[in-house]
Amino acid sequence: MTKVVTLGEIMLRLSTPGHLRFTQAANMGLSFGGSEANVAISLAVFGINAGHVTAFPHHDLGDAAIMHLKKYGVDTTYITRSDDRMGVYFLENGAMQRSSRIIYDRFDSAFAKVNRSMFNWNEILRGVTWFHWSGITPAISQGAADVCLDAVTTAQEMGITVSGDINYRRNLWQYGKSVRDIMPGLIQQTNIVIGGSVDFENCTGVTADSFEEACLEMTRKFPSIRKIVNTKRTSVSSSHNRMKGMLFDGQRVIKSKRYNMTHIVDRVGTGDAFMAGLIYGMLKGFSDEQALAFAMAAGALKHSISEDVNLVTVEEVEALVKEENVGKLLR
Amino acid sequence: MTKVVTLGEIMLRLSTPGHLRFTQAANMGLSFGGSEANVAISLAVFGINAGHVTAFPHHDLGDAAIMHLKKYGVDTTYITRSDDRMGVYFLENGAMQRSSRIIYDRFDSAFAKVNRSMFNWNEILRGVTWFHWSGITPAISQGAADVCLDAVTTAQEMGITVSGDINYRRNLWQYGKSVRDIMPGLIQQTNIVIGGSVDFENCTGVTADSFEEACLEMTRKFPSIRKIVNTKRTSVSSSHNRMKGMLFDGQRVIKSKRYNMTHIVDRVGTGDAFMAGLIYGMLKGFSDEQALAFAMAAGALKHSISEDVNLVTVEEVEALVKEENVGKLLR
Amino acid sequence: MTKVVTLGEIMLRLSTPGHLRFTQAANMGLSFGGSEANVAISLAVFGINAGHVTAFPHHDLGDAAIMHLKKYGVDTTYITRSDDRMGVYFLENGAMQRSSRIIYDRFDSAFAKVNRSMFNWNEILRGVTWFHWSGITPAISQGAADVCLDAVTTAQEMGITVSGDINYRRNLWQYGKSVRDIMPGLIQQTNIVIGGSVDFENCTGVTADSFEEACLEMTRKFPSIRKIVNTKRTSVSSSHNRMKGMLFDGQRVIKSKRYNMTHIVDRVGTGDAFMAGLIYGMLKGFSDEQALAFAMAAGALKHSISEDVNLVTVEEVEALVKEENVGKLLR
Amino acid sequence: MTKVVTLGEIMLRLSTPGHLRFTQAANMGLSFGGSEANVAISLAVFGINAGHVTAFPHHDLGDAAIMHLKKYGVDTTYITRSDDRMGVYFLENGAMQRSSRIIYDRFDSAFAKVNRSMFNWNEILRGVTWFHWSGITPAISQGAADVCLDAVTTAQEMGITVSGDINYRRNLWQYGKSVRDIMPGLIQQTNIVIGGSVDFENCTGVTADSFEEACLEMTRKFPSIRKIVNTKRTSVSSSHNRMKGMLFDGQRVIKSKRYNMTHIVDRVGTGDAFMAGLIYGMLKGFSDEQALAFAMAAGALKHSISEDVNLVTVEEVEALVKEENVGKLLR
Amino acid sequence: MTKVVTLGEIMLRLSTPGHLRFTQAANMGLSFGGSEANVAISLAVFGINAGHVTAFPHHDLGDAAIMHLKKYGVDTTYITRSDDRMGVYFLENGAMQRSSRIIYDRFDSAFAKVNRSMFNWNEILRGVTWFHWSGITPAISQGAADVCLDAVTTAQEMGITVSGDINYRRNLWQYGKSVRDIMPGLIQQTNIVIGGSVDFENCTGVTADSFEEACLEMTRKFPSIRKIVNTKRTSVSSSHNRMKGMLFDGQRVIKSKRYNMTHIVDRVGTGDAFMAGLIYGMLKGFSDEQALAFAMAAGALKHSISEDVNLVTVEEVEALVKEENVGKLLR
Amino acid sequence: MTKVVTLGEIMLRLSTPGHLRFTQAANMGLSFGGSEANVAISLAVFGINAGHVTAFPHHDLGDAAIMHLKKYGVDTTYITRSDDRMGVYFLENGAMQRSSRIIYDRFDSAFAKVNRSMFNWNEILRGVTWFHWSGITPAISQGAADVCLDAVTTAQEMGITVSGDINYRRNLWQYGKSVRDIMPGLIQQTNIVIGGSVDFENCTGVTADSFEEACLEMTRKFPSIRKIVNTKRTSVSSSHNRMKGMLFDGQRVIKSKRYNMTHIVDRVGTGDAFMAGLIYGMLKGFSDEQALAFAMAAGALKHSISEDVNLVTVEEVEALVKEENVGKLLR
Repeated sequence: MTKVVTLGEIMLRLSTPGHLRFTQAANMGLSFGGSEANVAISLAVFGINAGHVTAFPHHDLGDAAIMHLKKYGVDTTYITRSDDRMGVYFLENGAMQRSSRIIYDRFDSAFAKVNRSMFNWNEILRGVTWFHWSGITPAISQGAADVCLDAVTTAQEMGITVSGDINYRRNLWQYGKSVRDIMPGLIQQTNIVIGGSVDFENCTGVTADSFEEACLEMTRKFPSIRKIVNTKRTSVSSSHNRMKGMLFDGQRVIKSKRYNMTHIVDRVGTGDAFMAGLIYGMLKGFSDEQALAFAMAAGALKHSISEDVNLVTVEEVEALVKEENVGKLLR
Repeated sequence: MTKVVTLGEIMLRLSTPGHLRFTQAANMGLSFGGSEANVAISLAVFGINAGHVTAFPHHDLGDAAIMHLKKYGVDTTYITRSDDRMGVYFLENGAMQRSSRIIYDRFDSAFAKVNRSMFNWNEILRGVTWFHWSGITPAISQGAADVCLDAVTTAQEMGITVSGDINYRRNLWQYGKSVRDIMPGLIQQTNIVIGGSVDFENCTGVTADSFEEACLEMTRKFPSIRKIVNTKRTSVSSSHNRMKGMLFDGQRVIKSKRYNMTHIVDRVGTGDAFMAGLIYGMLKGFSDEQALAFAMAAGALKHSISEDVNLVTVEEVEALVKEENVGKLLR
Repeated sequence: MTKVVTLGEIMLRLSTPGHLRFTQAANMGLSFGGSEANVAISLAVFGINAGHVTAFPHHDLGDAAIMHLKKYGVDTTYITRSDDRMGVYFLENGAMQRSSRIIYDRFDSAFAKVNRSMFNWNEILRGVTWFHWSGITPAISQGAADVCLDAVTTAQEMGITVSGDINYRRNLWQYGKSVRDIMPGLIQQTNIVIGGSVDFENCTGVTADSFEEACLEMTRKFPSIRKIVNTKRTSVSSSHNRMKGMLFDGQRVIKSKRYNMTHIVDRVGTGDAFMAGLIYGMLKGFSDEQALAFAMAAGALKHSISEDVNLVTVEEVEALVKEENVGKLLR
Repeated sequence: MTKVVTLGEIMLRLSTPGHLRFTQAANMGLSFGGSEANVAISLAVFGINAGHVTAFPHHDLGDAAIMHLKKYGVDTTYITRSDDRMGVYFLENGAMQRSSRIIYDRFDSAFAKVNRSMFNWNEILRGVTWFHWSGITPAISQGAADVCLDAVTTAQEMGITVSGDINYRRNLWQYGKSVRDIMPGLIQQTNIVIGGSVDFENCTGVTADSFEEACLEMTRKFPSIRKIVNTKRTSVSSSHNRMKGMLFDGQRVIKSKRYNMTHIVDRVGTGDAFMAGLIYGMLKGFSDEQALAFAMAAGALKHSISEDVNLVTVEEVEALVKEENVGKLLR
Repeated sequence: MTKVVTLGEIMLRLSTPGHLRFTQAANMGLSFGGSEANVAISLAVFGINAGHVTAFPHHDLGDAAIMHLKKYGVDTTYITRSDDRMGVYFLENGAMQRSSRIIYDRFDSAFAKVNRSMFNWNEILRGVTWFHWSGITPAISQGAADVCLDAVTTAQEMGITVSGDINYRRNLWQYGKSVRDIMPGLIQQTNIVIGGSVDFENCTGVTADSFEEACLEMTRKFPSIRKIVNTKRTSVSSSHNRMKGMLFDGQRVIKSKRYNMTHIVDRVGTGDAFMAGLIYGMLKGFSDEQALAFAMAAGALKHSISEDVNLVTVEEVEALVKEENVGKLLR
Repeated sequence: MTKVVTLGEIMLRLSTPGHLRFTQAANMGLSFGGSEANVAISLAVFGINAGHVTAFPHHDLGDAAIMHLKKYGVDTTYITRSDDRMGVYFLENGAMQRSSRIIYDRFDSAFAKVNRSMFNWNEILRGVTWFHWSGITPAISQGAADVCLDAVTTAQEMGITVSGDINYRRNLWQYGKSVRDIMPGLIQQTNIVIGGSVDFENCTGVTADSFEEACLEMTRKFPSIRKIVNTKRTSVSSSHNRMKGMLFDGQRVIKSKRYNMTHIVDRVGTGDAFMAGLIYGMLKGFSDEQALAFAMAAGALKHSISEDVNLVTVEEVEALVKEENVGKLLR
C-alpha cells in the first residue's frame, strides 16, 4: 500500500472574512495550514495513504490541528506534543489590484523547538514510498533543519523517493545558519525538486541563462535529482492570475498549457496543490506530460477553494485535464 | 385579471456558504426552489397574478415553503398537504473552473405521491390565462405525470395557453415509464415549448440538422405548438457564462443578442427566469423579438441574484433591454 | 503640522450582505459614510492630521459615528450634538449587469438642522492648511448651505486652500433654493474644483465643447480656481468598471492612465478616495502628474475595500502607481 | 369567515446581534415591527383571517415590509404607498441587569403623513368582525389620529367589536394635541380596552385606589367598554421577568396564573402577543378565564421568539395553558 | 488495547441558528448525529479506541459524515456505502417554556437499506471489548434489525460485553414488525441495559410498581442482563432541566446526585453522553457508584455543548464529579 | 482636566463564537484586551481623559489595536512600536457547569521586550492625576518590570495617585525573578491596592486570619497604601456568578451589597470594570461607600457585555446603584 510521508510545521490560519482588511475585521476564519501538510491532505483526499510528521502544543488548539489532519484521513501517529506555542499566520485576502497579505507569527513554536531525538525515522518511514519536505523547515531552526536532514538521509538509505520544494523564504533563516549552509546537503539527497531559477541561485548558487540550463546544471551538481518542476505565475490582479508549469525530465523541459484563473477564491496553498498533483501522477506511473498536466489542473482548481487544502477528487482533476464539465452545474 | 398557474415540486434548497465545498460547510443557506414555482414567483414580482399548485408535508418546513410563496404574492390556495416528506436539494456553488454541484434528495416526497383525485383542475384553472408545466413533473412519479396530463388537458379544453419546459432529467424517470411514453402526450397539448434539439430527440425522437429544422419538424408532429424557445449557454467557467436565446415563431428562428455574464452570483433558476420573462412578454402582447429580448434580459439578471428566484422588477429588465444604467450606482 | 478640515454629513450606512437584494436580507452591515468624512478618514490613514466638522444626534448611534471617526484618528472636537435624527442610507450592492442601489433617508437629520451660530470657523480653522467641502452640503438645507459658505469664506480669508467636490445631487435641493442660487457663491471661494462638464453646467451654467474648454471658461468666471480635476468612469457592469482621471492645471488637461477594475468589492466612496489622494499629493508638493497618478491609484484601490472608507496606506498607493506587487501575495 | 383588521405603523426593526451594544455592532438584524401589525400576524398564524392597514414608502424596503406581512398571510390590500420615508427603530437587546434600549426614528414617516382621504373604511371593514387599534397611532400625527377616529367610528357603526391598546408613549404626541384631547374620543368607541391604571390616568384622567375600581370608573365613563385587560410585569432582569394578567369582565377582575420567564430571547412584542391571544380567545367564544389564560400563555411564549412577531400555533399555546410538554424535546 | 464498537444510523443534522423557529431561519447549522455514533465519538474523545459501523450514500455528504467520525478519531473501516439517500433530522432549539422540536426525514436511507450480507461481524468484532446498540436500529427496517441481531449474537459468542439503549421510538417501527417481535431477542443477548419502566413495558411487557422491582423482573426474564441504568429528567423549561441517574447492580438501585442544568445550550445527545460516560467507567473498572457519577457528570456537561457530540475530556468530567473548577475561568 | 494613565500589555483576543469549544470553531471573534487598557477604556467611556502606555508590533494588527483604543477615546501618544510579535489570548466561553478557558500565547511580545529607555515618564505623566498598573506587567519580563517600577516611582515623585491590581498569575513570572523579588518594591509606591488575602501572601508574605487584619498588616508594612479593595466571587456556574465587594479604608472594611449575575454574557474584564468604577468614584470625590457601590455596579454590568471592555455610561452605572430601570426595555 502506497504511503507518502511529509514533514513540516502546521500553523493556525486566521483569515479576515471576504476581502476585509485587518483593521476592519470583527472576526476571523479559523483553519490550519502548512505547505507540506497541505500536500499530505491533498494526497489523502486523492485516496493515497499519507501521513504527516510535525509537533504541536498540548493544548486544545493542538488537538484541533490534529483533528484537521485526521478529518481528511492523514495519519497523525508520529506527531509530537510539547508545552510550546503554536505558530500562527494571519491572512488578509486581497482583491483586484490590492495584494493579499500574510502576517506570520511562527517563531518559538512547538515545531521550531523539535530536535532529532524526537523522531525515529527508521520507524516512521517503514513501508513508505515517498517522502516530501520543503525549504521552509530547515529555515525555521537548527533543530528543524537537523530533523529534516535525518529524514531525507534515512529515506534515501531506505530507497524512498524524496521530493523537496526548495522555496526560499527570506523572512525565515534567523537562527544563525544561512540558506547555503544547509540547503545543498538536503538537495543532494532529493530526487524530485520543485523550484525555479531564483531558488536555485539562492539555495545553491547555481545560475544559468534559462530554466533548462539551470536544471541541467542542478542535476550535474546534485546527481540524485531526477526531475525538476516549477510553475510560473502572472498576477494580473489578486482576483486574476495565469499559471503554467514546467517539468525538466533530466534532459529537457516539458511545458504545460496555461491556465487562466479569473475570480480567484483563495490563492494560498495552490503550489502545494500542484505538488500533491505531481506526486500523485508520479506514484500512479503517469508519463511526465500526464503528471505535469494533472499537477497543473490540481493547482488551478485549488484557486477556487477556501482555506489551505485542495479538497478536490482525482475525478475532478482528470475532468479538468480533459476539459470536461468545466464550470458546469452538475446535477 | 391575468392569472398564470404553474404546477411542480418545490424543494428545500440547502446551499453551502460562498464557494465552500460540501465537506467544508458548517452551515447551509436555507431557501426553497423548484423550476415552475420559480417561474410563478418571478411573474408575481413582475406584477402578474400568479398561483402555484404543488404538495407539501404538514410539518413546519412545509409551512415555511408556503410562506416563501406567499411572501412574493403567489396564490397558494390549491396546495395540498400530506404526511410525506419534503424533497431537498443540496447545492455547492462552484467557482472558476470548478463546477457547481447539486445532490438531489427528492424521492418519495409529498409531491411524488400526488394523485389525480387531489386536484380539481376545472376549479383551479377558472379565470386563468396561462398554464405552465415542465418535464420534471412527469419524470417524478406516475401520480405526478397523471396530474400534469389532467392539467394540460383541462387547460387546453378551457382555451388556456399552455407552456412546457421539456427539459429531460436523466436521473429521474425511475418509476417504470420512459420519457417517450409520457412526454408526447403532454407536448401535443402544449402551445409554447421551451427546449432544444437534444430535448426534442430525448422526448419525442425528432432529430434534424439544425434547430430551425427541428422546430419545423416538432410543429408538424405536434400542431398545437405555436412557438419554441431555447437558450444556448457557453460555460467559460462557473463564474463566467455567455448566453443567447432563440425563438422559433412557427416559421423561422429569431435570435437574441448574446449576454456576457462574468462574476456570476447564482446560476440556479436562470432558465426559469428566462421562462418567466417570456411568459410576461407574451401576456403583455410584445412582439416575438421584444418578448425574447425581455426574457433574455430577465435570465441574464438572474445570474446576479442569490437563491432560486428572480427578484427583479419589470423596470429593471426593461432597462437592461435598453442597456440603460447597466452596472451603475443608482441613488 | 499639516491639518485638513472637512465639513459634511455622515450617515448610518446599512448594506445588504454580499449581493442580496433589499427584499432578501435578514441582516445589514452597519457602518458610517459621508463623502467629506470619507476624505478626512483616508487622509488620516495616510498620516495627515485631519479633522471633520458635522452634527450628530445625542444617542448611542451618534456616539458610534464619532467612534468611527476617532478609530481612524480623525479629530472630532468640533462636532455638535442635537436631539435630531441621524441620516441613513441603505445600500444594495449590485453584481454583473444589475446596478447597485441606494435608498437615502436623510431629511431632517441633525446635520440638516445645523445653523451658522453652531460653528466658530475662526477657531475651527486655526492652524489649518486645507479645507474641503462638497456640493452635497449646500443641497441639504439653508442652514447647511450657510455653514458651508461661512466655512469657505473664513478659509479664504485665512489663506487656507479650499477644495470643493461640486457634484450635483438631483434628489436633494428641496429646501427652496436652486443649485444655481447657491453654488456660484461657494465656487468663487474655492481653489481646487472636482467636477465635470455636467456639474459645471448644472451648478453654474457654464457649457463648452470639451472638458478643457469648459475648464478654461470656469477659471475665467471663477478666478479663485487654480485646478480642476475629474474622473471618467465606464461601467461595463457593477462588477467591472474602467476609470481614468483628468487634471486641468489652469492651462491644459493632463490625463492619467486608465485603470481596469474587475471584481469590484465596493464602489461607494471611490470618488472620495480619489479626492483624498489628490489632496495628499498636493499637500506633499507632488507635480500635477504625480498628484493625479496618486489620486487615481488611491481611487482604484478603494474599489477593493468594503464600506465607505479607503483603508490603504501611502505605501500601498505608491506601489500601485509604480505597478509593484499588483495582486501578489505579500508575506 | 372571521376577519380581524388592525391599523398602525410598521417600522423597520434593526437590532444588534446577540447582546452587543450599539457601539459594538458591525451588523444589524433586519426585520419589521409595529404593535398592531404584530397582533395581525399572530392572529394569522393562529389561522384567523386578518388584514392590516398602514402606509409604506414606494421603495424596496416598503416592498419588503409588505412581503413580511404577506409571508404570514396577512391581507395587505388596503396599504397605501407614498414617497415619504419609513419609520425605523433600532434595538439593543439587554442582558442581566442591563436594560434593553430602543432608539426610535419614526417622525415624518409615510404613516405619519396619512390623511382620512386615503382610507375608505366602509370598504375596508366590509365583512370584518373585529377592529384593533393602539394608542401609538393617534400619538403620531393629526392625520393618523383622524384616520384612527374614522376607523373606530365606522367600525362601531357597523357593529364591529373594537379593541384598543391605550398605552401612552410619552415621546410621541409632538404634533400639537395632547393625549387627553384625543384619546377619550377613541376610547368611547372601543369595547375591549387594554391598559392599566397609569394609562387610564394619562389618557382620561380617571384615577382610583385599585385596578378594579379604576376599571369600574372607566366603564362608567365610557359605556362602550365591555372588558378591560392588563398585564403586570416584574423585571428581575432583562433575562428574567415575571408576568401575570388581569381581566375586568365588567364587574370584577379575574387574575391569571403568574408566568416565570427566565432566559428571555426577545421581550419586544410580548404585549402584542398577549393581545392577539386575547382576541383569538374572544373570537372563539372562550370564557373570560380561558381567554385570559390563552392570552397569557401566548404572551409568555413570545419571550422565547426572536423579532417582533409571535410565531406560535394555537396548539402550542393550548399545550402551555395545560402545562403539557413544557420545555421538552418533541420528536 | 480496549476497543468499543457501536452500530447505528448517522443523520445529517440541520439546526436553526440560536432559538429561531423553522419558519424564520435563513440558514441552518450543519452537523451529523446519531445516538450510537455519539457514544463512539465521546469514547474516542475520552481516549478509548472506538469504531462505528453504519452505511452512507456515495455522495459528498456521505464523505462529510465519514470525516466527522474521523476528525474525532473513530475508526470508519466497516462503514458501507450505497446509492441511497442520507437520513436527515431538522432541529429547532426551543427556549424557556417553548419546546425544542425535531423533524425526522430518515426513511429509505442507506442505513435503512442495509442487509446482513454487508457486515462480517466475526471480522468487525475481532479484538473488541464492548459492543453497543440502541433500540432505534431494529426500529428502522428489517435489514437493520437483522444486522443488529447478528451483531449482538456474534458479540455474545465472542464474549464481548453488549450494552443496549432500549429506548422506544413510537414514530419508527413502520416496516411490519412490532417492537415486541424484535426487542426481546436482542435484550436477551445484552448485558448492560439502558432504559426505564416505560421502555421495559413497551419492549418486553414487563411492568412493576417501582424501577427496582421492574429491574429485578427484567433480570429474571433476561438472565444475560448484568446492570440496568436510567436517567430521570425534569424539564423546568427548555433552558432549565434537572437530571438524576439510577443504576441497578443486579440487586438494588444506586442513585446519583441530582444535577441542576440552567442555561442549556443543546439538549440533544445528552443521553448518549451519559451512556459513553458509563461505558468509560465500566471499561476502566470503576465501582458502580463511580461509574454512575462519571456518567452523570458527562451527561450534565453535554448540555453545555452545541451539536450532538460530547466534546469533553476525562479530566473535565472528573473535575465535575469532584466539583472542582465548576464554572470558573481557567487560564 | 483629570487624566488617568495606565500601563500594560494589550493582546489580540480570539474567542470562539457562542459557547463553541476550541475544537468546534470555524471562526473566532477578534478583539483586543488587556487588564490595564480595559480600565483606561472604561474610564474614557465614563468621560474621563485617559491614556494608555504599551508596545505594539509595526504590522496591521498593531494598527488595529491602536484603533481599538482610539475608537473609545483613549490617548495613544506614548505607545511604542517594534518588530516583535503581538501577544494573543484564545478564549473559549464556557456555559453551565463547563468552565471558560483561556489559552495564552503572549511570550516574546512587543510589550515583553520593552525596556526603560523607551518611555520618558516625566513627559508621559505631565498633568496626570492617577496612574494605574497591575501585577501582570512585572510578571512578564525584566524590561516590563523595570518600566513599571520607573512609572510608579515617577508618579509618586510627581504626587500622582497610584493604583495597583496586585493579582498573581502563576503561569507568568518565567524570566528568572520571583513575585516576591519584585512586587514589594512596586506596592510600596502604590496608594490604592486591589487584591485579596491570597495575593497579599503571594506577593508579600503577609498572612492574617481575616481580610481586615490582612489589610491592617499590609498598610503597616506598606505605609503608602491608603485603601485596599477586593471582590469576592462565587461561581454557581459559568452562566451564574455572585459577587460582592470590600473596601478597606485604612481602618475597617466596608462591604457592598451582593450582586446576583445570572445569564452571564462575558466574564472577562469584569474585575477591570470594577477597578475603573472605583477610580471613577475616587476621582469624583465619592465617599468610600459610594465609590465601592459604583465600582460594584460597573463590575456587575460588565458581565452583560461581550468582549473585554465595559461599554457602559456613568448614567447606566448610577441607575443600577439606585436599582432604577433594572432589566427594563427603555424606549
